[in-house]
Amino acid sequence: MSELTGNERIDDLGRGGRYIIQNTDEFCFGVDAVLLAHFPAWHSGDSVLDLGTGTGVIPLLIADEVRHIEAVELNPALAELARRNVALNDLTDKITVRQGDLRQPADIYAASSFDRVIVNPPYYPAGRGKINPRAGLAMARHEITATLADVIRAARWALRYGGKLSMVHIPSRLQEIVAELTSHRFRLQRLRFVQPTATKAANLLLLEASVGMGHSTVEILPPLIMREPDGTYTAELQKIYTK
Amino acid sequence: MSELTGNERIDDLGRGGRYIIQNTDEFCFGVDAVLLAHFPAWHSGDSVLDLGTGTGVIPLLIADEVRHIEAVELNPALAELARRNVALNDLTDKITVRQGDLRQPADIYAASSFDRVIVNPPYYPAGRGKINPRAGLAMARHEITATLADVIRAARWALRYGGKLSMVHIPSRLQEIVAELTSHRFRLQRLRFVQPTATKAANLLLLEASVGMGHSTVEILPPLIMREPDGTYTAELQKIYTK
Repeated sequence: MSELTGNERIDDLGRGGRYIIQNTDEFCFGVDAVLLAHFPAWHSGDSVLDLGTGTGVIPLLIADEVRHIEAVELNPALAELARRNVALNDLTDKITVRQGDLRQPADIYAASSFDRVIVNPPYYPAGRGKINPRAGLAMARHEITATLADVIRAARWALRYGGKLSMVHIPSRLQEIVAELTSHRFRLQRLRFVQPTATKAANLLLLEASVGMGHSTVEILPPLIMREPDGTYTAELQKIYTK
Repeated sequence: MSELTGNERIDDLGRGGRYIIQNTDEFCFGVDAVLLAHFPAWHSGDSVLDLGTGTGVIPLLIADEVRHIEAVELNPALAELARRNVALNDLTDKITVRQGDLRQPADIYAASSFDRVIVNPPYYPAGRGKINPRAGLAMARHEITATLADVIRAARWALRYGGKLSMVHIPSRLQEIVAELTSHRFRLQRLRFVQPTATKAANLLLLEASVGMGHSTVEILPPLIMREPDGTYTAELQKIYTK
């Protein structure tokens, strides 16, 4: 097992004895990464690119569902941690971690080479909201190193015709998200909002968009509700966390 | 009371003794018009434009909430019916019906002259789906006489800076709707999806967008559920229909 250093901790991912090392100085994955990993209907032949993988949590969660995953991370310390997590879980044949900048996608991977792109990007523009003084957290939450447009452009570059992008983001930026998808010729296909409770406004969205021609036909799924009125997790959320 | 002819019928609108004449050869209003009329937070000083008023159902439903309503209808027979409905309900001081073409908005009303625009437009592009052989129904459902872009352009022309557009539409066209709003410099503000039941995908959307500068901050409200699992209307829908 990998040696833990400084502020690292190791967590059970809750599926088939899979574990993850995270560093509390950097960024620990949240419910958004877990919900995103479960949103697509994965196929066993899928070649998947995870943009901004962080500690590699999404590849670890979906490794059993797909053929191969390439995971890109800008932050060298996080890329190294992701590599250790892949090794820790004996997944070096299935997951490749690359340190690289998604703003220069041609330097990292070939055009049109993936069936799927998955991304849990920073949610807030650099100019809006308080920036976290810890660099790792700031990059994960604010668009310091990659904007929404950068992320969508990188996904468009990587996907084959008919390939699909899956993304988690915040509902407040829906108009910008749709505008960027449209200008990069993605067709929005599925959208699911996540609500803290049945009566509260959504605080996350999950989307799927495909590379292709013609008009889009959007399906709006019933919202994913996190908690019952009494504060306990809903049956659907519990199922996501245990399957 | 107005004389009924041919295929006309008269219905109780269910509020304060308000009535509506409809012609079953043309188009009878549906639940979408009622949901749309209840979506905005109306103010007593609002000057409102209803684009494509049909029989005038939305002005009749909101007349008590606002200062004045101008209702535009392209179809002369429907415009005449809307006028009779306004007279029938003694609302000629509050509602003005004009026969006119929203594709030529400058011919009908002055630029930037309304606080609010409300519109229940045709949902389907002319090239998609079966066209109803009855002209009135076809114009109401398919974009034969006005496209989504025409409707949003007309709304943009009519609204003052800071004014708001409220629209009902179908979720499958969300990407086109957001793209048109963006290109006409509307900021999407509120979005609410309508689901037949709690577990079914949405089949209508209600939106509010404002004329203004800067980035948009979208609020996604919890969905409006039409029916309980046993088929009865939900408490919220019953409240909308009786208040």
